[in-house]
Formats: sequence, C-alpha cells, structure tokens
Amino acid sequence: MTNSDIKFQDLKHIWHPCSQMKDYETYPLIPIKKGQGVWLEDFDGNRYIDAISSWWVNLFGHANPYINQKLKEQLDTLEHVIFAGFTHEPAVRLAERLVALTPEGLNKIFFADNGSSAIEVAIKMSFHYFKNKGRIRPTVLSLKNSYHGETIGALSVGDVALYKETYNEILIRSMQVLSPALCDEETALKDLEAVLQKESDHICAFIIEPLVQCAGYMKMYDPSYITKAKALCERYDVHLIADEIAVGFGRTGTLFACEQAGVTPDFMCLSKGLTGGYLPLSVVMTTDDVYQAFYCDYGEGKAFLHSHSYTGNPIACAAANATLDLFENESVIEKNQRLIRSMSEGLARFAELDCVEKIRQRGMIGAFDLKGFAPERRIGMEVYEYALSQGVLLRPLGGSVYFMPPYAITPEELDRVLSVAYEAVKSLRP
Amino acid sequence: MTNSDIKFQDLKHIWHPCSQMKDYETYPLIPIKKGQGVWLEDFDGNRYIDAISSWWVNLFGHANPYINQKLKEQLDTLEHVIFAGFTHEPAVRLAERLVALTPEGLNKIFFADNGSSAIEVAIKMSFHYFKNKGRIRPTVLSLKNSYHGETIGALSVGDVALYKETYNEILIRSMQVLSPALCDEETALKDLEAVLQKESDHICAFIIEPLVQCAGYMKMYDPSYITKAKALCERYDVHLIADEIAVGFGRTGTLFACEQAGVTPDFMCLSKGLTGGYLPLSVVMTTDDVYQAFYCDYGEGKAFLHSHSYTGNPIACAAANATLDLFENESVIEKNQRLIRSMSEGLARFAELDCVEKIRQRGMIGAFDLKGFAPERRIGMEVYEYALSQGVLLRPLGGSVYFMPPYAITPEELDRVLSVAYEAVKSLRP
Repeated sequence: MTNSDIKFQDLKHIWHPCSQMKDYETYPLIPIKKGQGVWLEDFDGNRYIDAISSWWVNLFGHANPYINQKLKEQLDTLEHVIFAGFTHEPAVRLAERLVALTPEGLNKIFFADNGSSAIEVAIKMSFHYFKNKGRIRPTVLSLKNSYHGETIGALSVGDVALYKETYNEILIRSMQVLSPALCDEETALKDLEAVLQKESDHICAFIIEPLVQCAGYMKMYDPSYITKAKALCERYDVHLIADEIAVGFGRTGTLFACEQAGVTPDFMCLSKGLTGGYLPLSVVMTTDDVYQAFYCDYGEGKAFLHSHSYTGNPIACAAANATLDLFENESVIEKNQRLIRSMSEGLARFAELDCVEKIRQRGMIGAFDLKGFAPERRIGMEVYEYALSQGVLLRPLGGSVYFMPPYAITPEELDRVLSVAYEAVKSLRP
Repeated sequence: MTNSDIKFQDLKHIWHPCSQMKDYETYPLIPIKKGQGVWLEDFDGNRYIDAISSWWVNLFGHANPYINQKLKEQLDTLEHVIFAGFTHEPAVRLAERLVALTPEGLNKIFFADNGSSAIEVAIKMSFHYFKNKGRIRPTVLSLKNSYHGETIGALSVGDVALYKETYNEILIRSMQVLSPALCDEETALKDLEAVLQKESDHICAFIIEPLVQCAGYMKMYDPSYITKAKALCERYDVHLIADEIAVGFGRTGTLFACEQAGVTPDFMCLSKGLTGGYLPLSVVMTTDDVYQAFYCDYGEGKAFLHSHSYTGNPIACAAANATLDLFENESVIEKNQRLIRSMSEGLARFAELDCVEKIRQRGMIGAFDLKGFAPERRIGMEVYEYALSQGVLLRPLGGSVYFMPPYAITPEELDRVLSVAYEAVKSLRP
C-alpha cells in the first residue's frame, strides 16, 4: 500500500474536518501508517515531526508504550459500562486526581466526550444553576476573537468569524467584550465591567480561554487579566468558565493556565491533552456551590439530566490516568522548562526577518505573525508545504505560525522544527 | 476494594449523567469491576446481565476478545493523528465499508465523536447547504416525542420535555409535527405535509429516529411512514435526516432501520453501536449532492469548517472495523432472528398482567408500558431495583420497561431477563 492508494480511497468517501475538500487537489492528503514518539510516518516512508501535537492533543508521543500498556490492561477488564447508576474505578480514580490537581474548590466533575460537549455542559449548567435559583439568565459573555468549539452552543459563544458567521441564523444569543489579547488590559477590563454593570441580570457566565486564544490565531494575554476579571464576575454574581481545553495540561508552562492567575473559576473545561492525545474525553470541573443548586428530591425537577452514551468511558479514563501517571513520575512540568527556554531562543531568531511580527510565547506555545502578504495568497499554506517537505508538521492559522509540540520532543528535535520554520519563512517571496 | 469503598470515593466528586444525585442516597450506585460477555460484575462479586447494552451501545459483549485484539494492534501502530490534511487506514477502511452497508447513495462520510455532535453536524450541514445555494432556511423540523441528544442544537430539535423544557430560553428554533408513534400514520403524514406546504421555505431539514423513538419511551411506528415522509421531503425540497444513532446496527432487525422503508435519507447519523459499545465515535453519512454544494475554491468561502480534535480517531475506527468484522463473519443479522423470536414469546406473557399495556417490539428492541401508577411513585425505579436484586440490569424510561440486550446474549439468558422483568412487574403493589 502506498500514499497514493490510500489517498485515492480516502477522497472517494471521506469529508475531512475543517477542510475545503477541493484544497486536497493542491495540497495532497498525507496518509499516516504509524506513529512513534514525536514522529509520524506515511505509507511512502516519509517521516514528519508532529510539531502541533496533532491538533494540540498529544503530550507524550505517539503510540506511547506506557499508555498503551495501561489501555491494554483496561481492555481486558472493562471496556465500558453505563455511567448512570453505575460507576467504575478508572473514573473514580481520575476524578480524585483531577480534583487534587485543579485549582482549590473545583470538587465536582461531570464527564463528556469532546471539548465542544464540555462547553455545552458548562453553558447548560450555568444557565440551569440560575434557573434553579429562580433567575433567568440566558446570555453567555465571551471575549472577542474567542473559540470554544463547533456544536451550536459552543459556536455561539465563540467569535472567530471564519467558523461562526455562516451559522448566524441558527445560533443562540451571546455577547462579546474586548479581548486583552487584542487591546491593553485596562481597556479590556473596563469594557467587561461596563457590560456586567449594565447586563449582568441577563448573563449567567463569562467564558474565557485563559492566557492564549488558541484557534483565535494564538493571541496571548497576561494572567493579571484573569485575576481581575474573576473579581468582576464575583462582584456581579456571574460565573467564570475557564475553557482550558487547549491550554490545560502544561501547555502554558503550569499544569493549568488559571494557576498563573491564582484563580478558581466556577467551571473548568478540560479535554485534548486530558488523554495524552489518545481518545476523545472531556470533563467539566465545578464547585460545591453549583452542585448543591441541583441536589434535591427528584420531584423538585432540578436535576441536570444531560448525558452522552459513552460518558465516563473506562478506556478513555484509563488513558487519562496513564497520562497523569507520566506527569507525576517524570516531573514533566519541571522538565518542560528546558524546552521552553529552547523555544524562546529559537523564536528570537525570527526577529531578523522583515515579514515577521508579534513574536510571542506562553510556556510550550510559541507563535508569530507573517505580515505584508495579501490574505488571498494564503501564506500559511506555503509555510505548511515547505515544512512538510522538510519533515515537519506545522499548520499555521491564517498568517499566524505557531509551535505546540508534544512534551516528548527533544531539544534537538525542537531546534530542527524552529530551523525548518525559519527557512520556510525566509524563503517566502514578497 | 468493595462496592462501599468505591461508592464513597465516587460520590465525593463525580456528578453522574442523567441523574438527580440525591437519588443515589436511595438507589445505591453500583461500581463495576469487570465485564465479560453480557455480564457485569461489581466489587462485591454480584453479577448482572446487561439487558440494556449499557445505554444501547454494546453489541458483542463486554471486553470482547476479538475487538480487544484489534484495538491492541491499533495501539501499537497509531493511536491518533490530526484528520485535517492527514488520514489513516482505519478511517479509510471504515468509510468504504459504511458506504457499502448504508442505503445506496450515502457516499460521503464526516466523522465526529458522539451522537449529539453528529446531529449538530447534520443540522449545520443542511442549513449550510441551502445557504451555499443562496437560501436561508434556519428551521429544523422534527417529530413530537423525539430525542436527538443533549448539546444545544441537538436538544433544540428534540421534544422530550424532561430534557428540553428547562433550557427553552437558550435553544434555537425548531418545529415539531405529529409523531406516527403517537397517532395514526395518515394523521401524522397530513400534519407533516401541512407544515411543509406552509413553511418549507424556512425549513432545511426534517429529522427522525426511524421506527423507534427510543429515549421518547420506546414508542414505535411503521416503515411506511418513513417512505411517505421521504417522498414529501423530496416534493418540498427539504432534507431528511435519519438519526440512526440508537436504532442502527441491527437493533430493529435489519442492519439499518431505513432499509425497511427502502429509503435513502439525505443524512444518516450513526454512533452508539458503531464501535460495538467500546468508544465514543459518530459519523454523518451524506450524498454527493450535499458534498458538491461545498466543493469549490477556498476563496468562495463555502467550506464546511466544523472539526473536533479527535475527529476520525484511529482507535475508535479500529473498534468500528472490528465490530463490522463480527457482523460479517458471524452472520449476526440472521442469527438475531432466533433472539427476536425469543423476545417476542417472552413479551407475549406480559399481556396476562393487568398493569401492562402497549406491548411492542421492533427487532431486538422490546417494550411495554406500566399503567395505573401515579407518576410521583416512579414505578420504573421499583422495576429497576427488583431486577438488579435478581442480577439483571434494566432501566425503565418512566413507566416504560424495555429490553435492548447485546446480540451476544443467549436465548437462555434472554429468557432469564424476561422472567425477572415479569416477576418484577407481577410483584408491584397496586
């Protein structure tokens, strides 16, 4: 079997995510045969460093032997069981550990299957919380340039026009305030306060991606905004939802981004890295206060009746537990400091290039923007193609080039990624 | 470790799906240690026949050796890779097979992670299809008493008040027509036609659960409704979405319920049994006509940019391929005929009981309603408790008792399930 065989079969039937399928006439699909560590290998024997962690999910390398071992043990024991009325050890163990690791006060956990579903759960829970207390607050507040997923509720509270605009007529109400990633912090906070002052009677929650608006072109901001925004949410009695789906599990340097702000949100959504890049699983962590607003006799009709068939799937929970084992046993957060320094040094070089601006980094996420190119040129695709030809998987967001490698990458491999990106950018025709 | 240990740890932190958590004071959580075939075993050594396939997902038994073997092989090869720009053999193979197995004309496949997400994809695609053709049709039509999932888009098009009503203020527009499961077919079709005649300019799609409204208390109807409804949809240029998430993969006797109506819907959503009960995965199958409405140069801005991080997850696809292997190699649909007859015979006995009405069956799904009990008594919970005490997991929906066992059940085990249910119902105090 060759790349060409698989590609041909694929394009007969498969509609790929986030793709204009016609693009595959120009930018060929790459069929991956196997993964090992940070490397992906196609059917023609070409190898690529996965410098974007396969859409920001992989942490400890592909086909990780330790995680594989744990999943095989789980398969032989219990692959799945209904999670209403029933429970199992992998979920219970994962719950205990996540409660211990996340900011103090997030004592309750609700399981779902993907990031979008976690956002939907948080929105429904927040709205329902106020309804259970006799208040109707149907609006979710979010930041401009935010991204929270693709299901209709999640899409409604995001603000990237590319994904959202088409669906305006089938979205629910939401409001956006200025993003601290796009203006100065004080201006952003003033805008937030002005909206809360005027509208908080209608707003159940304010949702943010702490520190990095990832799908929003990797725009970054400081933890102090989160600290102050949380204080404002408390003053106006509005929930804070921290969407740590992309930034959680060490991406920003700390295990969770909220830690840097010293904040406990009312809801924290986790997915992606939760299973180390293995399987879809998400959780919504919340407080005793939220939980108690639903806890009463069944007849009162206040229960949260959301469910997905595979809620709390034991195999996915086993992957998450194995991932947490690796964090613990290998002092990952500490060891990543070395990689963070390497990335920092590698990024600095890009300042030499005239077409590069806004070089930025938060922990294990580095990015810069390309300037001076017309949007219709789709300059990011030229970087994508060049990097692939050199054995590196990058996937710029528009004209924003970013690096979000698995933690299993070596400093030498990271140097290679940054050098290839440098050459890619340097070789762009003006 | 005992049931009591795990339960205690669980209730400290876990918020279970579709649960009033206070109920667990009365109806204790059951911690499952392992699964094998149709049997679940708890930490105290009690064993239960999983007569509801763990929320309608399991087909070939828990910890199935064949599926396990295939998943272990996949783990050693490739656990996951980004599915935009990249592809892999398990997804390509699954796509080919599903196109061959589903009704003729469903040539394209889009992957998602759970049933709700599949419904969201179908809604967005249908709306977007018309928008790409210059028409704005923001309304989805569905049946009364329908259920399509819990994310906001999916919930909006459903009609079970228990799940939906609380969230009315944060739902998108939808309309419901009479269900053929709750009135005669002709009346239901007249209602559908009247609405289509008046409103089809605003309606992108009509969504149904073919043959059985599962979460809507296992209400059943005939395939002829689907055939005629499809003709009406064609006449008024409205898409038909077949939500076969619960009824697909042999539950109604045929591999897909739509087969019995001889119909190719414009969209078919599959999940649950797709992976044999192992892992969250869903697909939306659609036509070349729909696909082509999005296929053009990127600059035209018509692409379907929906995505989830784990779209097309290779491990989940491997589970689905192993499940299809079992269907093929073991002539499952044919062999199920024996079980269908056993269920039929077992169900007939319930006619003797005064408190039983509306005994019904579609293939491997059997159900009846309990009558004469006040809703606040929650009579289904009494059946649940009794059955558990006898080693059978049933989970009535309100006063509707149903059976949806894995196909791995033996006729003797199925007899046991039906006998326990019979004793449970017989022992109810009036």
